[in-house]
Amino acid sequence: MTEFIPPGSRFHALPSPLPLKRGGQLHGARVAYETWGTLDTAASNAILIVTGLSPDAHAASHPGNPDPGWWEKMLGPGKAIDTDRWFVVCVNSLGSCKGSTGPASINPLSGKPWRLDFPALSIEDIADAAVDAVRGLGVDQLACLIGNSMGGMTALAVLQRHPGISRSHINISGSAQALPFSIAIRSLQREAIRLDPAWNNGDYDDALYPEAGMRIARKLGVITYRSALEWDGRFGRVRLDSEAGDDDPFGMEFQVESYLEGHARRFVRRFDPNCYLYLGRAMDWFDLGEYAGGNVDAALAALSLDKALAIGANTDILFPVQQQEQIAQGLAAGGCDAQFVGLDSPQGHDAFLVDFERFCPPIRAFLDSL
Amino acid sequence: MTEFIPPGSRFHALPSPLPLKRGGQLHGARVAYETWGTLDTAASNAILIVTGLSPDAHAASHPGNPDPGWWEKMLGPGKAIDTDRWFVVCVNSLGSCKGSTGPASINPLSGKPWRLDFPALSIEDIADAAVDAVRGLGVDQLACLIGNSMGGMTALAVLQRHPGISRSHINISGSAQALPFSIAIRSLQREAIRLDPAWNNGDYDDALYPEAGMRIARKLGVITYRSALEWDGRFGRVRLDSEAGDDDPFGMEFQVESYLEGHARRFVRRFDPNCYLYLGRAMDWFDLGEYAGGNVDAALAALSLDKALAIGANTDILFPVQQQEQIAQGLAAGGCDAQFVGLDSPQGHDAFLVDFERFCPPIRAFLDSL
Repeated sequence: MTEFIPPGSRFHALPSPLPLKRGGQLHGARVAYETWGTLDTAASNAILIVTGLSPDAHAASHPGNPDPGWWEKMLGPGKAIDTDRWFVVCVNSLGSCKGSTGPASINPLSGKPWRLDFPALSIEDIADAAVDAVRGLGVDQLACLIGNSMGGMTALAVLQRHPGISRSHINISGSAQALPFSIAIRSLQREAIRLDPAWNNGDYDDALYPEAGMRIARKLGVITYRSALEWDGRFGRVRLDSEAGDDDPFGMEFQVESYLEGHARRFVRRFDPNCYLYLGRAMDWFDLGEYAGGNVDAALAALSLDKALAIGANTDILFPVQQQEQIAQGLAAGGCDAQFVGLDSPQGHDAFLVDFERFCPPIRAFLDSL
Repeated sequence: MTEFIPPGSRFHALPSPLPLKRGGQLHGARVAYETWGTLDTAASNAILIVTGLSPDAHAASHPGNPDPGWWEKMLGPGKAIDTDRWFVVCVNSLGSCKGSTGPASINPLSGKPWRLDFPALSIEDIADAAVDAVRGLGVDQLACLIGNSMGGMTALAVLQRHPGISRSHINISGSAQALPFSIAIRSLQREAIRLDPAWNNGDYDDALYPEAGMRIARKLGVITYRSALEWDGRFGRVRLDSEAGDDDPFGMEFQVESYLEGHARRFVRRFDPNCYLYLGRAMDWFDLGEYAGGNVDAALAALSLDKALAIGANTDILFPVQQQEQIAQGLAAGGCDAQFVGLDSPQGHDAFLVDFERFCPPIRAFLDSL
């Protein structure tokens, strides 16, 4: 039951009480954020980044935390998101365990961690909290709103609920609604955690911890974050140097198994299992079409934006590139100057985190054009 | 620890002792099989079907068992595999729990179930056992060898190890070697079972049973057996009539979740977990390239066949259609009249079990041409 707060985080206190979309409210809630660059005097050069499920707000290094961030190669002076020009804010999602209030945080009314008493969380709540944080920094309108993966959903919720909040938008490997394949994957991840006896209905601690469930959930995630094509080239059928001994007849034998193992090892104790459940379910629930009688395209067309870019990888199986194409087409139908870019990256859903060669140029070109 | 033997099964006793490819041997082993149609006097009209991981030998109804089989719409009088013309044999894989000897069977030397003492099982062992069974029926050469999914691997192993055993071959949604994406999936399925405390190192029983692990393994399987495209059309974001109550805050809510649940419920107590581990690992190990210095194409070209059809669904993510294309091209390079058919079926790897409209015609045409 731990939060993992990057050093140098800053915090924004949310209104208290904070009512959530599906009922319930939070007292004394906050979001963690980090910033880069300088806000100009007209407060007109701000960019907000909303993230995927697991990242914290530490997208890149800065004087308060020199550690490389998860988007170090994308964000910084002279980079695609150029902090010499832009004032960039990255907000950790409400419901996460990286400094923002979530199921792993203490409920001030009880003095104990929220765990499953945390109210039902929606993408819309995450969106509202991020907007409140940028308003707290003196920004009334963003130059650009950037959302990756789950953040692509959050960004659309921001635009729907706060018309005029941003002049432009980049949606990266995002979607306007969860579809059944990704719902199935996330449902199975949640089930693996919940079936682990150590999950204990959310009441675990560092000693009694649903390690097995988190391992399965993370490995399943990683399988869907990359692509078969990439792995064919990267791992093929290469064996590990030392094959599993007789003591573990079904142990690891192929490089791809050890790759998954490494990912699991780096994750299972670094992300709170209950937060994982809440955030995954929030994604499953998200459907921008709700705001236009079930019609996603109409809901996209109703968003107010001058310019947008929807971009993704053709090998993405979790947020298929057709979903980014739908976003661009829907926005364009509403009069937005919207562009779709499907990149031939072999790296699947995660490509925006690793394939900077392909992702940086269109993002740079879009921001330079503003 | 149960075997699930269809009524009306017949059995073929394998040589005893039976040495396996990777070491170890079986005593008193057998395979279960079923037959349809009549062997002609020249024993020239026999077809052998080798199956995927989970099916039994009951591919279709017959007088000994009128229950519909898993390929009822493909196999029978006047059907694509026409039992008025062909004598058809379907063999349950060695290592399975549907009547053939496997980890759930009694080891006659100890009087107890084999469990993890079962020797390491390879696709080649499954192939040899199937060949022994058809030879036991008086068939020296098959008119056609048909393999589905894992059976597509088994069929290639049959052809490699028993040159001239078949004049023709239909490889359906199969592959000549396991690639890392499918290895990763199967490895994770095994891990889910092995992490279930009730698996107990293979020493479970009906009371202490790795139900949770098997649920995860099966649901993960079903996710990879179908396609996102099919599910978009079939389930969309449709909710279940009654949403999960407060007693299960992360319970099922979407139709796709209930679909997976139904599959899991029908499977977890109907397939032996240890058999699942052994058969999945056998697939991971399979690489026809082993027989030509690591060159799969050369190994395919070296197989002796007059005519072949390699067929699959373009939406298959587990045995991608490129693998069936590789089989056809490799066989053709060796002088075989080999044809590849990639079908626009939305139903993914399982399409050959459900999309008879697309799969029957090319299979019928191929067999009619013999």
